[in-house]
Amino acid sequence: MDRFMPGDLILAIDAGTSSTRATLFDAAGQPLGQASRPFTVAYQSAFAEADPASLWTAVADAVRDLQPDPSRIAAIGVTAAIGMLLTDASGEPLSPICTWQDRRATEQAAAIESRCGAAAVYSVAGRRIDPELTGPRLLWFRERQPDVFSKAHLVLTAKDWLVQRLCGQAVCDPAGASYSLLFDVARGAWSHDLIAELRLPRHLFPEVRDATALAGLLTPGAASALGLRHGAPVVVGGPDGTVGGIGGGMVEPGIAVNVMGTTDVILACVDRPSFDPLRRLVLNRFPVGEAWSVGGPMAATGGAVAWLAGVLGADLRALTAEAASIPAGSEGLVFAPVMAGSRTPRWNVSERGGIAGLAFEHGRGHLFRAALEGIAAEVAEVFDALAFAGMTVNEIRAVGGGAESRLWLEIRAAMLGKALIVPEVVEASALGAAMIAAVGVGIHPSLRGASAAMVRIRDRVEPDPEVVAGYARLRRRYAALREGLEGLNPPQSGEE
Amino acid sequence: MDRFMPGDLILAIDAGTSSTRATLFDAAGQPLGQASRPFTVAYQSAFAEADPASLWTAVADAVRDLQPDPSRIAAIGVTAAIGMLLTDASGEPLSPICTWQDRRATEQAAAIESRCGAAAVYSVAGRRIDPELTGPRLLWFRERQPDVFSKAHLVLTAKDWLVQRLCGQAVCDPAGASYSLLFDVARGAWSHDLIAELRLPRHLFPEVRDATALAGLLTPGAASALGLRHGAPVVVGGPDGTVGGIGGGMVEPGIAVNVMGTTDVILACVDRPSFDPLRRLVLNRFPVGEAWSVGGPMAATGGAVAWLAGVLGADLRALTAEAASIPAGSEGLVFAPVMAGSRTPRWNVSERGGIAGLAFEHGRGHLFRAALEGIAAEVAEVFDALAFAGMTVNEIRAVGGGAESRLWLEIRAAMLGKALIVPEVVEASALGAAMIAAVGVGIHPSLRGASAAMVRIRDRVEPDPEVVAGYARLRRRYAALREGLEGLNPPQSGEE
Repeated sequence: MDRFMPGDLILAIDAGTSSTRATLFDAAGQPLGQASRPFTVAYQSAFAEADPASLWTAVADAVRDLQPDPSRIAAIGVTAAIGMLLTDASGEPLSPICTWQDRRATEQAAAIESRCGAAAVYSVAGRRIDPELTGPRLLWFRERQPDVFSKAHLVLTAKDWLVQRLCGQAVCDPAGASYSLLFDVARGAWSHDLIAELRLPRHLFPEVRDATALAGLLTPGAASALGLRHGAPVVVGGPDGTVGGIGGGMVEPGIAVNVMGTTDVILACVDRPSFDPLRRLVLNRFPVGEAWSVGGPMAATGGAVAWLAGVLGADLRALTAEAASIPAGSEGLVFAPVMAGSRTPRWNVSERGGIAGLAFEHGRGHLFRAALEGIAAEVAEVFDALAFAGMTVNEIRAVGGGAESRLWLEIRAAMLGKALIVPEVVEASALGAAMIAAVGVGIHPSLRGASAAMVRIRDRVEPDPEVVAGYARLRRRYAALREGLEGLNPPQSGEE
Repeated sequence: MDRFMPGDLILAIDAGTSSTRATLFDAAGQPLGQASRPFTVAYQSAFAEADPASLWTAVADAVRDLQPDPSRIAAIGVTAAIGMLLTDASGEPLSPICTWQDRRATEQAAAIESRCGAAAVYSVAGRRIDPELTGPRLLWFRERQPDVFSKAHLVLTAKDWLVQRLCGQAVCDPAGASYSLLFDVARGAWSHDLIAELRLPRHLFPEVRDATALAGLLTPGAASALGLRHGAPVVVGGPDGTVGGIGGGMVEPGIAVNVMGTTDVILACVDRPSFDPLRRLVLNRFPVGEAWSVGGPMAATGGAVAWLAGVLGADLRALTAEAASIPAGSEGLVFAPVMAGSRTPRWNVSERGGIAGLAFEHGRGHLFRAALEGIAAEVAEVFDALAFAGMTVNEIRAVGGGAESRLWLEIRAAMLGKALIVPEVVEASALGAAMIAAVGVGIHPSLRGASAAMVRIRDRVEPDPEVVAGYARLRRRYAALREGLEGLNPPQSGEE
């Protein structure tokens, strides 16, 4: 048996909604290679299920595609999109992975709300009761698949299961556990009260360790599947939103991150477990130590922009260029692109998008700019909610695909009245996983140290003072549009 | 000198906003040929001026292009878009033609309102005080061009001036006179009270004769310019909106017409001078006899549809086909296409368009159908206002370019809950001018007789009963959207 020799590279595994990436980083955060593989997800009515075997094969194949020198791998870091599955005593899946899009547990979420109360649950779990969380889903399995449920040894996140597949250890990180609805986010431990209240077996819930802790060493079987040496350290890791924040530099209290993707995520790292009195914000345990993140996922933001480009029959680049030539304020056009309801901070699934101020002088560039401004106004509402809840934000990092567009960033900076700091690597979840793994094996002393070494800043987008005042007025019109649209939601099916 | 011999054809001259058409009809209303020529219109800030000489040349050239057999012309009928000019004692223009788009007299309209009061003027003139009307413009000329004003012998509409150019007689019809703001529409005579109140000289206002009356005979000079025989009867005619209504069959009380063009016009013929207590409707003297028309011009309707096609980068035909495949109600999308403010019945120039209910499942076909449904809801508001004011509408005729689309008509019929009757000739103003001329020379005994002989029905679009109820609900959502948008009008320039 080979003895593990310390290496200089970090392998990051980042499993998204339907494909997984493997990226090799050096200790300075420089990406040296990346490979990507799809896996199978089945959608059927409210179900959205990923196949664990297919996910594992995709991970193994993506790492094999990279062909890293096995002797140079110092650590393996893992992150994944939110998703849960049940495993048996040997770690074999008893269920598919219910992804974050899976809504099967709608009735069970309502049952928890009427049994426990939304406020009581929020005060422990730091979030609203939602079918996408582990708690309601466990009730679903108990009711609908009692055979599976009775055999279940553990409930794991997709990331936890991948880590177990790599090193044989089933452990969970505090940020991932926060998505269960059964985690006491202030204390950083499973909530035995909530678990008892829902009559769930305590044994289902895995040990919680910091994201930077060692989970175990790569097993011979996994090493062979991935084309690596066994014995490589596998670190606990965390969920992709939070880990992406870390990859953007959200490594200490006062730093916030805006992940600009198909949906936006906004998280701010804070040093106390601040619950939002209006329950508009999600409170997560931070992946490491005595810290928390506050914020939450937004509704389709980049998705709305892509939809608009499709309807207008033009590509994003051309439309962005047209929008750049339109003055701030889109000459009176206001566009609320909440086309699939809202999440943070309004949490209204029945909301739909709307436009006001439409005039003949408006062209598609105006529509596109107004959509970007509307999304920026939504983002500003989240930062307002953070301020209202007493969170201090000293610095905002922007990552994700949207951070590649200077115009999008300029509009946000002016709407927020604050600078946006843009790292070189805007696909930040892989880098975040690598940072966590680098800390786990001692390459860097802390996430703060890892950020200083690995997160290089590409750009700093300052708010244009001439635009800031106009956008403050636009935000009032935007808020009025959102209020007005509430009374105009389409009738629910059956009504019309 | 040739003696005039009765012919069998009617020549209709129809002068629009920037081009004029000449059409030859037989006594059965069959168009036998048409020619069109542009004329010069100059736009500068609030001014929109057509050149009378250019208009006259366009008319003469269009008739020459037709090459009609001079011996077969039984009558000449004229209609034109609303516009006014001042002439000297010999009939020569002292001013350009101020077209209906000309807004120079905004201050003078306000002065009339504060001097006479909107309600008092409405109770005589049957309309709101607006810069596009002759009264305010006469004040403008008196203030700004006193030399021109002092030399003025008559104030004529563009149509009156064309008739004078053809036969040497300056006369006016009761419908055209209604657009002056100085006409007592109930009595069918100039309002000496209003004229005195504004200290305007009574001599400026020409003799009023029914539209079907003989104005005079074609002069040798005009005959030579047009390539016709002199002595052909020239009939008084009327303004193009009302004359288009007649061309659609609005020839007796109870018949309404919807002219579907760049803007829509809705007029209903009534047998008493009914003033709308809310002043939302325009009351015109009917061109002939003891009758009136009630209704008014709407804002840009077809213009909004054309704008949307431009923004979506697709043609009207393709978009109409896509919209036809979308269910009634556009799957929750509501679109108020009032992109340049509204006229009848809301009269709010600062209104702008808006959209509510926008969702990811919507494509451009939804947007297009929602625009058609929004316009239909606007049209229904005008018919509501007619009903509120006590007008009886037994039958609705649809003419104009929009009446060529079956889908557009089906949407309107379902929104109104009434059948739409579509004549063969949807470019109805030329046919209306020919009908008036045919009555004038005795080819048909009355407009009713002319309609029976000359207006052939192509289609009758019944409301789909399955759609009618859904559209009644849609109208409530549409009205709520319009209310909501009022608070969201763009800031006026200077505010932002």
